[in-house]
Parts: sequence; structure tokens; C-alpha cells
Amino acid sequence: MELLEKLKWRYATKAMNGKKVPQKKVDEIIEAARLAPTSSGLQPFEIIVVTNPEVKQEIRKIAWDQSVVTDCSHLLVFAAWDNYTTDRINKMFDLTNTIRDLKNEGWESYRQMLLNSYSQRDPEVNFNHAARQAYIAFGLAVVAAAFEGVDSTPMEGFDPDSLDKILGLREKGLRSCVLLALGYRDVEKDWLVNLKKVRKSTEDLVTFID
Amino acid sequence: MELLEKLKWRYATKAMNGKKVPQKKVDEIIEAARLAPTSSGLQPFEIIVVTNPEVKQEIRKIAWDQSVVTDCSHLLVFAAWDNYTTDRINKMFDLTNTIRDLKNEGWESYRQMLLNSYSQRDPEVNFNHAARQAYIAFGLAVVAAAFEGVDSTPMEGFDPDSLDKILGLREKGLRSCVLLALGYRDVEKDWLVNLKKVRKSTEDLVTFID
Repeated sequence: MELLEKLKWRYATKAMNGKKVPQKKVDEIIEAARLAPTSSGLQPFEIIVVTNPEVKQEIRKIAWDQSVVTDCSHLLVFAAWDNYTTDRINKMFDLTNTIRDLKNEGWESYRQMLLNSYSQRDPEVNFNHAARQAYIAFGLAVVAAAFEGVDSTPMEGFDPDSLDKILGLREKGLRSCVLLALGYRDVEKDWLVNLKKVRKSTEDLVTFID
Repeated sequence: MELLEKLKWRYATKAMNGKKVPQKKVDEIIEAARLAPTSSGLQPFEIIVVTNPEVKQEIRKIAWDQSVVTDCSHLLVFAAWDNYTTDRINKMFDLTNTIRDLKNEGWESYRQMLLNSYSQRDPEVNFNHAARQAYIAFGLAVVAAAFEGVDSTPMEGFDPDSLDKILGLREKGLRSCVLLALGYRDVEKDWLVNLKKVRKSTEDLVTFID
């Protein structure tokens, strides 16, 4: 399967050379994230794409001084909803009705069920749930980058609260979760580029209940 | 990009016809999940593959009676580590040293840093972190199924505590997070099969900071 080849090709690039990724490729990578499946189709996250050099410098300071933050071409910030709200849920259900040009009783009672259950949950529980959905999209963006021949670095090594401040995310009801730097490997400087990929064995990963 | 075509083809299948998915295809889907990137490469999750009809029946009872649970071919249960432990972290770092045939000072101090930081965090925080990694792999499995022409249903609609009991996951230090049913669509019975895919617009998803 071509997908497996792409997954073997990619690796968490540790040094990038500053070369620009064409916008068309970035758009395709974002499109993969946009098409990701999410719980009840709510897509409870946004993506902030940072190319501004000063902002990248600011982020690098709160991201363990990792060089890829500034040497990447595009820095994708995946930020999840801080909570599920009535407005946010209704917006997606209304959009569904518009796109499908359909009113459906089952769908409307599903809407009510979600509105009731999410509003009773702690915001932190809802955020954690939203973050998981963002990670699905994040994974698809990683794969899409590989399909485009673009190197990428998945990064959790940053201070989310500081990043939220730099990007003004809390005011928008968002919380940063994970970063994906897009760019091109610096073969000379990247200590990881020639090392073998490490994964646990299928036996250690999977249990069959036949 | 072929990936986008596959993402447009797939949908959350709501009725399956009971047809068996060839084991080779299931293996490839699992392989995509195995190759998924995870935080520090720890792969803090396992996959339980259920084909046993009685066990599927049991699971259906605690999964909103969704028919795909029993009508699918293989039910993949993604279960995350309930906590990061010294043993688990060391196992992956040791595996890395074995595979790369390399001892590295920087890598060993990174190991110590992880051991120190994870052990000080609440198990629930660690579980939530592990679950996010499982969702990356889950996303890749969804994509891999599409590449194999296999329909799939992402499912969070189940009671995790009950599922953990059915599968004996807690004893293994695991907690179920999300299910992926693999099989083939029942075109006659699936209400969703002919409806348009709904996604928010790129404008609503993305902010550029140039």
C-alpha cells in the first residue's frame, strides 16, 4: 500500500533548512486535516498557520528552543475548542442541514442529546475530548505532508499556556494542543535523519480475540 | 493527491453487510497504526481486534446497540495506557537502543527527563496524553482502511468502563478510547451512504499569521 511507503519515508525531522513549502502543498495538507473524521462531525478544533518570522521566534522561546520552529516553512498549530457550547454544536448541525438540504427527526434528536450531554460535562473533560479529535486531524496532516514530499516535525514540546497567549487563542475559546512544523530536512544537521525507525512489534501492539 | 481522494471516498459507515475483510487487508491497516508517530515514540496504546461473535454481541450491548458492532468483520479497539510507568518508558528506550545499536548520552538524559516528568503527573493526565497518541494511530487506521477499499466506522458511542471489563483491559493497564469497525457497507440499509459529506469551510478552520 502506498500509504505504508509514505509512513516509512516520513520521520520527525529535527533540523530544517528554511526552504519554503509551496502554498499549494500546504493547502493540500490542510485539506487532509479538514476532511478528518471527528466525533459527531463537530470538528472541534482550528489550525493556525504561522509563517511570520517574529511570531516564530516568540514561539521558539517557549518551545524548548527547537530550531525547526524558526527553520520550518509553515508552523501549524492545532488548537482544540476549550469547551463544547450550544452555539458551536448548533452551528455544525445547522451547517449539516444546509449542506444536505434536509431536516431529519433522528438528526434533530441527536442534536438535543449532544446539547444536553456536553453542557453537563466539565469544560476540561470536553476540552480533552475535543483535543483527541484534533489529534486525528493532526495525524492526517502528517500523512498528507509525506504524500506531498514535505518533511514535518510533530511537536508537543512547548508551553501551551504561553503559546495560547502569543496567538491570542483563549479569547477565541481555543487551546493549543500540538504543533506540526512543515519544511525540508537539513541533512547535514539532522541527527535523526539516518537512524532507523523504531516501533514496537505487531505482537506487542495487537491482541486478537477470535 | 491520492490521499484526498481516499478521504473523500470514506464515510462513517452506519450499516455493514457482514462480509469478511481479508486478513491481509486488516494486517495492512494495523501496520499503518503501528507506524503512526507518537509522543517521544512511546506508542502508549494497544489494539484489540475482535472477531469473536459472542464478544461482539457483548460489546454491542454497551455500545448503544449499534448494528455495525456485530455486522462488521473486525472490530478494532484502541486502548491507551492507563499511565506512563518506569517500566513502560524504559522498555521503549531500551528497544530504541537495541534497534539503533547505539548508546547516546543525549538520548539517555531525555529518558531520565521523561521518567521524572511523567512519574510526577496525575495518572489521569498521563492517560489523557496517551489517548491523544492513540487517536493519531486511529486516524491512520481510518485512512489505511480507505486505501484498502474497506469501509470503516469510527465509534466513541460505547461505555468505556464496561468495555474494559469485557476485554479485561484494566488488568493490563489499558483503557479503551475509541473503536473502528472494519467491514463493507450495506447500501440498502445505510442511511448515511448517499448523503453529502459535511465539513466546515477552510476559512472557518484556518487562520494564517503571515
